[in-house]
Amino acid sequence: MYNFVYQNPVKVIFGKDTISKVAEEIPLNAKIMLTYGGGSIKKTGVYDQIKLALKDVELVEFGGIEVNPHYETCMQAVELAKTEKVDFILSVGGGSVLDATKFIAAAALYSDGDPWDIIAKQARVKKAIPLGAILTLPATGSEMNGNSVITRVSSQEKMAFSSPKVMPKFSILDPECVFTLPDKQVANGIVDAFIHVIEQYLTFDVNSPIQDRFAEGILSTLIAEGPKVLADRKDYESAANFMWSATMALNGLIGAGVPQDWATHMIGHELTAFHGIDHARTLAIVLPGVMHVKRESKKDKILQYGERIWGITSGTDDEKIDTSIAKTVEFFESLGLPTTLPEYDVDIDTIAKITSRFEERGFKLGEKADIDFNEVEAILMDRL
Amino acid sequence: MYNFVYQNPVKVIFGKDTISKVAEEIPLNAKIMLTYGGGSIKKTGVYDQIKLALKDVELVEFGGIEVNPHYETCMQAVELAKTEKVDFILSVGGGSVLDATKFIAAAALYSDGDPWDIIAKQARVKKAIPLGAILTLPATGSEMNGNSVITRVSSQEKMAFSSPKVMPKFSILDPECVFTLPDKQVANGIVDAFIHVIEQYLTFDVNSPIQDRFAEGILSTLIAEGPKVLADRKDYESAANFMWSATMALNGLIGAGVPQDWATHMIGHELTAFHGIDHARTLAIVLPGVMHVKRESKKDKILQYGERIWGITSGTDDEKIDTSIAKTVEFFESLGLPTTLPEYDVDIDTIAKITSRFEERGFKLGEKADIDFNEVEAILMDRL
Repeated sequence: MYNFVYQNPVKVIFGKDTISKVAEEIPLNAKIMLTYGGGSIKKTGVYDQIKLALKDVELVEFGGIEVNPHYETCMQAVELAKTEKVDFILSVGGGSVLDATKFIAAAALYSDGDPWDIIAKQARVKKAIPLGAILTLPATGSEMNGNSVITRVSSQEKMAFSSPKVMPKFSILDPECVFTLPDKQVANGIVDAFIHVIEQYLTFDVNSPIQDRFAEGILSTLIAEGPKVLADRKDYESAANFMWSATMALNGLIGAGVPQDWATHMIGHELTAFHGIDHARTLAIVLPGVMHVKRESKKDKILQYGERIWGITSGTDDEKIDTSIAKTVEFFESLGLPTTLPEYDVDIDTIAKITSRFEERGFKLGEKADIDFNEVEAILMDRL
Repeated sequence: MYNFVYQNPVKVIFGKDTISKVAEEIPLNAKIMLTYGGGSIKKTGVYDQIKLALKDVELVEFGGIEVNPHYETCMQAVELAKTEKVDFILSVGGGSVLDATKFIAAAALYSDGDPWDIIAKQARVKKAIPLGAILTLPATGSEMNGNSVITRVSSQEKMAFSSPKVMPKFSILDPECVFTLPDKQVANGIVDAFIHVIEQYLTFDVNSPIQDRFAEGILSTLIAEGPKVLADRKDYESAANFMWSATMALNGLIGAGVPQDWATHMIGHELTAFHGIDHARTLAIVLPGVMHVKRESKKDKILQYGERIWGITSGTDDEKIDTSIAKTVEFFESLGLPTTLPEYDVDIDTIAKITSRFEERGFKLGEKADIDFNEVEAILMDRL
């Protein structure tokens, strides 16, 4: 395996009836900004639980953070955080609210110019308002990492930044939050977590059995438990296993010391930027194309994946790879996620726009940095 | 799975040529106490590497920490740390040196009475001198947890304490340190890590597939990579996989949200206390006895272990359990660790002494707290 540095100090508080513990985790005498989304936390009762737990705390609220959170929205929250001089931000929601909160926390203390530089120029985050999370939707893994993905509406750009400064101080994960999620969000979450694992696993072999076995363990758990959650939303144990899988999928552990891909994410972000397609659905579209176009480069790992995850042991290597792709597509579709572009009304014009965007940017994608704009085009053409 | 809290802020710096990075990790202008063992670090060159890396740092040295570190030795180091007013302790060695360093760090700032209370009475550690580790021997997992096991010679007691205050700030893991280890230490390390996993896995099912798959991933890696390390000490990749396995075996992750046993460790400690047998060897003796005596209570998990780790699929449940125990014994013996008491010149008198010690203490062992002194006796009698 490669040399690596791994550090993840996030305190995970996992299980039933844990939301009420939030008061013990926030700093004493701090002014707290509560960030949340479109109000589902009010319908589910999570908002009331938090207000009760924090009844003796000085609170400022910023609601209305959208899915694929907007830079423009975040900057309104930054203004509020500055005006109100908040000491700590508590994110209540899924990955979108938490990603927004991370950007708000960093942007509020950014003094080296335009805060958009944190994303566009990957400017270093020297400090951030400390933050914590109550996670209501397992999917992105944002609850145990320093990653954030933000969309700037004005320029139709969706891009990421990462900094240890915006790792949550704590994340409260109560699997009962899954009970009230609609099917679509559960299905998206399963696929999002699944592809986070794939992007750190389906690369090339560097002799890293611990990372490989852990990755396979998360994949097999998502395959076994995901459908159970969809079938019975009150199945606490399956919800818990799904939730812990999504966290472990992107907390740095399975990616430590191994090559990583992220081409599927980078291309998927463009589909969201141009067409507003749910993040997980863009991944479900793009991944089969990446597997097909990079079948030679990723051969050993796709064969390992096929055998260990789907039990594929017969046929030529090419046939095994085809079957692995087919099983992957079948899994996503069984959860209700279409995997081709026409199913989302995306046509060849968008492929041209995305291809030219990668041509302009110039950099190449993938674990070998060998996916140029021509291959991006081939990947998307595979999904027409 | 159970509710849990998981937090592990240790910074792991893993890989080739990482020892030279130590100077970047220790606090500026701090007075450092270097702790180490019997001098093997001087033979292997690790000592020289560290002295070079820390040539501009104010250093105090405390060498001579023994295997199964003595309380009496630690207290000498505590005196030195106090006299010299050290700000940071750097542990250079294996788990014994690091466990001693953790106790020294806590005892030096303990002001509530006799420092032995930290162990004997599990007195709370409110503060400790910050510490870091350069790990030269993969085995105990001490590099990424807050655990420490100390032996008091005067009373022939070997006992543990645990506190987040003594987690290393950083641990440098250079797999090349394995190159110079004698066979016995490598074999002991493999078995120690293996049984750490077993103690968190071979209990009863709480529907925790992530924890189970991770545990199985570590076990299978140790089985595959351990013998390669023994066969070729300069095989870097196998050494790296062994080292990372040992760390992951006891950093809290696979034990989060699941029942844990630790009976094998508790009984094993007594064999070390009375006979000075290497820690790992005591575990290799005791575990098969625990599996045999608790075969009904642990049935589901032993069957899962047998099938997933050793491919045991035929026979009655009882036969499968017998085969699982036999395969486990065979693995330990293949590494050179005898697994019965007579092979260590331990006879029935010691069993009586250990049994009566557990009778006096009164508490019961195991994940169900149902192993009383009679069962301790049965476990040891099984190993005669």
